[in-house]
Amino acid sequence: MRVDVVGVGTELLLGDIVNSNAAAIGRFLADAGIDCLRHVSVGDNEERIAAAIHDTLAEADGVIVTGGLGPTQDDVTREAVCLATGATMVRDEQMAEAIRSRFRRLRRQMPENNLRQADRPENATPIPPTIGTAPGLIVVHDAKPIYLLPGVPSEMRDMMSRAVLPDLAARAGTPAAIVSRVVRCTGMAESGVAEAVGHVWDGMRTGDVKMAFLAGGGEVRIRLTAKAVTREAAEAALSDVQRAVEEALGTAVFGVDDQTIETVVLELLTDGQMHIACGESLTGGMLGSRLTDAPGASLRFAGSIVAYTNEAKQHLLGVGRDVLEVHGAVSAECAVAMARGARARFAVDVGVATTGVAGPDRQDDVDVGTVFVAVSGPRGDVWREVHLPGDRDTIRRMAVAAALNLVRLYLLDALT
Amino acid sequence: MRVDVVGVGTELLLGDIVNSNAAAIGRFLADAGIDCLRHVSVGDNEERIAAAIHDTLAEADGVIVTGGLGPTQDDVTREAVCLATGATMVRDEQMAEAIRSRFRRLRRQMPENNLRQADRPENATPIPPTIGTAPGLIVVHDAKPIYLLPGVPSEMRDMMSRAVLPDLAARAGTPAAIVSRVVRCTGMAESGVAEAVGHVWDGMRTGDVKMAFLAGGGEVRIRLTAKAVTREAAEAALSDVQRAVEEALGTAVFGVDDQTIETVVLELLTDGQMHIACGESLTGGMLGSRLTDAPGASLRFAGSIVAYTNEAKQHLLGVGRDVLEVHGAVSAECAVAMARGARARFAVDVGVATTGVAGPDRQDDVDVGTVFVAVSGPRGDVWREVHLPGDRDTIRRMAVAAALNLVRLYLLDALT
Repeated sequence: MRVDVVGVGTELLLGDIVNSNAAAIGRFLADAGIDCLRHVSVGDNEERIAAAIHDTLAEADGVIVTGGLGPTQDDVTREAVCLATGATMVRDEQMAEAIRSRFRRLRRQMPENNLRQADRPENATPIPPTIGTAPGLIVVHDAKPIYLLPGVPSEMRDMMSRAVLPDLAARAGTPAAIVSRVVRCTGMAESGVAEAVGHVWDGMRTGDVKMAFLAGGGEVRIRLTAKAVTREAAEAALSDVQRAVEEALGTAVFGVDDQTIETVVLELLTDGQMHIACGESLTGGMLGSRLTDAPGASLRFAGSIVAYTNEAKQHLLGVGRDVLEVHGAVSAECAVAMARGARARFAVDVGVATTGVAGPDRQDDVDVGTVFVAVSGPRGDVWREVHLPGDRDTIRRMAVAAALNLVRLYLLDALT
Repeated sequence: MRVDVVGVGTELLLGDIVNSNAAAIGRFLADAGIDCLRHVSVGDNEERIAAAIHDTLAEADGVIVTGGLGPTQDDVTREAVCLATGATMVRDEQMAEAIRSRFRRLRRQMPENNLRQADRPENATPIPPTIGTAPGLIVVHDAKPIYLLPGVPSEMRDMMSRAVLPDLAARAGTPAAIVSRVVRCTGMAESGVAEAVGHVWDGMRTGDVKMAFLAGGGEVRIRLTAKAVTREAAEAALSDVQRAVEEALGTAVFGVDDQTIETVVLELLTDGQMHIACGESLTGGMLGSRLTDAPGASLRFAGSIVAYTNEAKQHLLGVGRDVLEVHGAVSAECAVAMARGARARFAVDVGVATTGVAGPDRQDDVDVGTVFVAVSGPRGDVWREVHLPGDRDTIRRMAVAAALNLVRLYLLDALT
């Protein structure tokens, strides 16, 4: 089965945004064992969207269209599908009522043009939205499905897994199984990871399991993809390679697939019945924000004190004036004092702290990218000095990853 | 003149990498005043690459093809061009010698298949590489140019500016200028924005200035794109529409192009010689993190107290126990007390606070998405109750945007 992708949005053509949806859908389809042989992007233009859908269906067994489903005048994907398939547009009263009740629930006045999102080709089946406001649509034309999904990535992903993949699976008969898994590790460079798993790579039979590396956000992801006749066979081949990779990388591996380093840290805290608090400087709140990304964080996370100034470090985190005068704010001593301070002020088991220079300029004669992270807890204090490459945003993100990783290794008692 | 883009690479279809080249080329072409109406991505397959080139040239005046120019057997873009144009492949002795001498210079043994990069359709003009090893090629077929560029972004960009754009400018005759600007606003839904500027939309002459909406991250971006014979004429047309849009939206507009709401807030604080601190609950540090995204934030931002628990709200932000008992942690009273507490603890001019329910579950009988933001400062205290849609991450991001916007309006004295 072959399903191709059409992205809609003038902002894609102008390069205002990168078409990450096409890549995400490519992964969804590959994982489902469905071929995807062409991605097309066109602007917010009815005729060209219709032509792209028409041309795609001439070759593929189905098409996924993203974008152009919003309430405004430039959202014309619905109209384009009518044009491509000869369908008439109707207003779906059930969808209209869902939109009205959504606004009532949010206690907002509904601008009338929101009801454009209740318009659909007469033969379309709506996919009700659970995140945004735009309903998705499934239109079957000449026995081939056209899936219309919102361009907002989170809404697209939600509808892909909730509606499109199940619908495709029902149509597909017996597909070849492609299974993939992502092994996630941190604290090593991409080239170091590649070298460490080199013997696994060499030992893999061609075409059985494939391995790809992706570095970013302070971690390296190793994507393993196995294809076989049955899902069980693919899973088995994958598990063998995964085991070998995890053995080669040891405690650098923090999780698999959707596990993030913060969810792993929260699990370890739960296991130990412990609570955590942060003291942050260069990360400005990003460390606390990452720890509270996951639902249920409130059970383990007490809070964070972001002390951007030296005064705040003294008064709110209890960093001694001598530490700041002798060692400076960007020092192991200051990081440890901040971690202790966070632990004491919030009266929790574990304190974690970040201090460093995010740039763009050097600070107190310390190079951009110099970062100290520290953990204070029942096993005593630990700290690490890291030198991070990249721009301000990258350095801050990698500092957060380094701090979370130090907490993880501390809680695992895996520090050497 | 219209030039479309074809991206080559199975990794694009599988979603292993995002096609950032298409966006980058889109920006190059828009800045050069050249229309680009379709991006296509296909895998490393000779027939499908040839078909994509053929189909593109049926509509466009030229095509830029990226990827598939490497030395390995899966790089077949050169062969595909021969197939699409009926040209014969020849080995270019000058290109071959350049490759050999490159290896001699690096004192490396040259694997024989590197010479595949010296193969070219008989009528092609090479673009010598200055960064990587892959030469680009210009092939003219039926008076239309086909540009073949490497898939590595830095090599592609180098050849775009060095060879492709000059060649296109020479072919284009009198180029048209395309200028675009993004007007950014917040505190209104996308549909409300569209309705408010509806009369501007209606009044625009077709094809002169175009308007597109993009919602996300708690703001709505209105992209205005003008096309005219000269850059001056395009700028003038754009400015007229921009003025009308800004008039229609009033203080909802916070900035243009790269201006973010946090940089605007920092500018307003600088104007007033004021400092800010945060008290955060559901945003977990994201508000402080956003305020410190910009370099130079340290001049205006003192810090943030993330008080996730009621105990931390009491002890670290000084929220009265009566406030928590009578009104609860998710209340206007608590938000105001947190803003006052942040202001007092950091001894700054302005305190800003967030409290609310990010979900996924209701909390203390309050609906998911209910958020209170408050500002305390020299003009007294203000607060807003908002009801935000979406998942946990979206609600937190929009809560940050709502808090920053309340600070902005407070500092502008624009609250009614």
